[in-house]
Amino acid sequence: MATVTTDPTGRFLTLGTGDGPLRFHALWLRDNAADPQTRAPGNGQRLLALRDIPEATAIAGAEVTAQGLRVDFAPEGKSVVYDIGWLIQHAYDRPADPGRGWLAPGIRTWDAGLMGQVPTGDFAALEQGGAALQDWLQAVTTYGFGKVIKGPVAPGALFRIVDLFGYVRETNYGRLFEVRTQVNPSNLAFTGLGLQAHTDNPYRDPVPTLQVLYCLESTAAGGENMVVDGFAAIQRLKAETPAYFDVLADHCARFEYAGEAGVCLTARQPMIGLAPDGELTGLRFNNRSLAAVTDVPFAAMEHWYAAYRRLGEIIDDTAMEVTFRLDPGEAFVVDNTRVLHARKGYSGEGSRWLQGCYADKDGLRSTHDAMNRHRPPEAAE
Amino acid sequence: MATVTTDPTGRFLTLGTGDGPLRFHALWLRDNAADPQTRAPGNGQRLLALRDIPEATAIAGAEVTAQGLRVDFAPEGKSVVYDIGWLIQHAYDRPADPGRGWLAPGIRTWDAGLMGQVPTGDFAALEQGGAALQDWLQAVTTYGFGKVIKGPVAPGALFRIVDLFGYVRETNYGRLFEVRTQVNPSNLAFTGLGLQAHTDNPYRDPVPTLQVLYCLESTAAGGENMVVDGFAAIQRLKAETPAYFDVLADHCARFEYAGEAGVCLTARQPMIGLAPDGELTGLRFNNRSLAAVTDVPFAAMEHWYAAYRRLGEIIDDTAMEVTFRLDPGEAFVVDNTRVLHARKGYSGEGSRWLQGCYADKDGLRSTHDAMNRHRPPEAAE
Repeated sequence: MATVTTDPTGRFLTLGTGDGPLRFHALWLRDNAADPQTRAPGNGQRLLALRDIPEATAIAGAEVTAQGLRVDFAPEGKSVVYDIGWLIQHAYDRPADPGRGWLAPGIRTWDAGLMGQVPTGDFAALEQGGAALQDWLQAVTTYGFGKVIKGPVAPGALFRIVDLFGYVRETNYGRLFEVRTQVNPSNLAFTGLGLQAHTDNPYRDPVPTLQVLYCLESTAAGGENMVVDGFAAIQRLKAETPAYFDVLADHCARFEYAGEAGVCLTARQPMIGLAPDGELTGLRFNNRSLAAVTDVPFAAMEHWYAAYRRLGEIIDDTAMEVTFRLDPGEAFVVDNTRVLHARKGYSGEGSRWLQGCYADKDGLRSTHDAMNRHRPPEAAE
Repeated sequence: MATVTTDPTGRFLTLGTGDGPLRFHALWLRDNAADPQTRAPGNGQRLLALRDIPEATAIAGAEVTAQGLRVDFAPEGKSVVYDIGWLIQHAYDRPADPGRGWLAPGIRTWDAGLMGQVPTGDFAALEQGGAALQDWLQAVTTYGFGKVIKGPVAPGALFRIVDLFGYVRETNYGRLFEVRTQVNPSNLAFTGLGLQAHTDNPYRDPVPTLQVLYCLESTAAGGENMVVDGFAAIQRLKAETPAYFDVLADHCARFEYAGEAGVCLTARQPMIGLAPDGELTGLRFNNRSLAAVTDVPFAAMEHWYAAYRRLGEIIDDTAMEVTFRLDPGEAFVVDNTRVLHARKGYSGEGSRWLQGCYADKDGLRSTHDAMNRHRPPEAAE
């Protein structure tokens, strides 16, 4: 049974729970009331602005009842009942400062050990929705990528993958772009050049947060797809040399693409993106479109380059990479803020045809989270 | 005439210019070489990764010639000529730490004083492209919003505005959304409620960076559109109480919208967004979709709420707001990462019909910057 005591000032109360005491401020409680005058019963939107809540709001009384925690607010003379489980879930009275580079709950980093367990969904099953889709979306959220197999060998089929969870992000490259390669002896040398693993379009703000690549033709040997968990690479960099992590997070790089008429895309962003409290939120890494870096002070530039070099070495380490082949009708989705991708070189003649498009994580996360909220509890484990 | 001296270590050189000495590191110079082996002549993409450039790269010689600055690199034995103007433009040997909250070059903040000079483009002239479009895109970039007049009164015409510079960001609200209001005596009380100025969809990552609202019908008195420069509001907050600026920038708020089936959009972002070096990059402010804030430690929560309250008061200050009426065939575009918008209440009967959509700034900035790069020098100031 929970208990409650109110501070004599009325500025906060302390909820006694099985997990220890949790303090909540008067203003926070009032702002987060769920009564129908504060939150619209239909869509949950808050009906008040903070200006509608008195600055001098205080707790005039509080009691644990069978319905939950009842709080009486002065000067409004308003009483609100809170679900105690909801309060515990939203408690903010905990030690701060988790340090820099922490990961959001639910993210699992990986390396080459994930090979053979690539998160994979069956096209037809995913289109049915339900648990198959939910599990695959969960895997994409957890690992930052996922494969789809047994899809139609049809141009435009990649849009049916985006339809599973969200919306295409159209850019100057179109709603989709073609990736065609003819591999023959006369250009083998060129196609044999491996592309370094990279994230796409770092010169764009906002960066496309998801990419879909869908295979329609693949008759050449080689040309496997390769992915690297950028968050795992960053964590390794930080473990080896914390100052390398710091210098890449503390200064902006510059990225640019102006390779066609009417296009001049530029971005000023750090290679390692952090939330203000240190959560690791993104990686931009692409040697082809890195522009002259001008926001690192002279005294830090050699250190920055050393860190960039070491991060590249970690990304290039085969112990970090997962490779898989895409056959016609197969595709993969990658979180472009976290997972780098590349294509291996070819070793024989033939052709390869992929279609690609961009999409955004807001739709994927929303679809996934909405399914989770509504999954029957017994199935939610 | 420029001069050059190389440090005895070979690690950097010093370029003597009319503006004083500028130091450049060997590795930075080598990485930013523009020769055709380093950068693809066609599209400017870098052909090398950092792994292809020796870690021990040093300057073996340097000379100012008629062609520019020639630098000889060891151990590669490679010589590269740099344009001296380009080097001066990309110099990074300057005092660091501009402090927090600085604005990107070209941004001009504004308040109610901008009324009467709202950046405005003529629909037909904008579709012609050229200087009219360039000037309007410049204004939108500078002020964070712009109006369009004399457009067709036709559903879907808003897409022709997006076509001027970029691409629609489709979301769960569709490629466009309808904003229809019937104003009559029975619901006047409701429509008379002013919406607090806000940014749209703060619960989305990435947030839509542009919004277009296009008027198709407007017969009721009132209902003016109102915009507030969020960057001006934040600068005022910082000038008044620096600690309020800091607490809103240093902690994440939470935003949520789960008001329809299958949708659960959440974001964990600070109200005030900064780049790692303190550039002011964004604002998220929306009382309706602010969720329970759980990432502010207990000791800072009252301070955070006081800062949030004061920022809201500044945003509500009529001295900050610019209002304008949209008649049928008129529209406005707003930078949703910077400028807040709202609708004033109505004072009479009638109806109002707007169509809205989202788009992104990457396309707008790219179109604008590409025009600027190619504008004849005499017209470019």
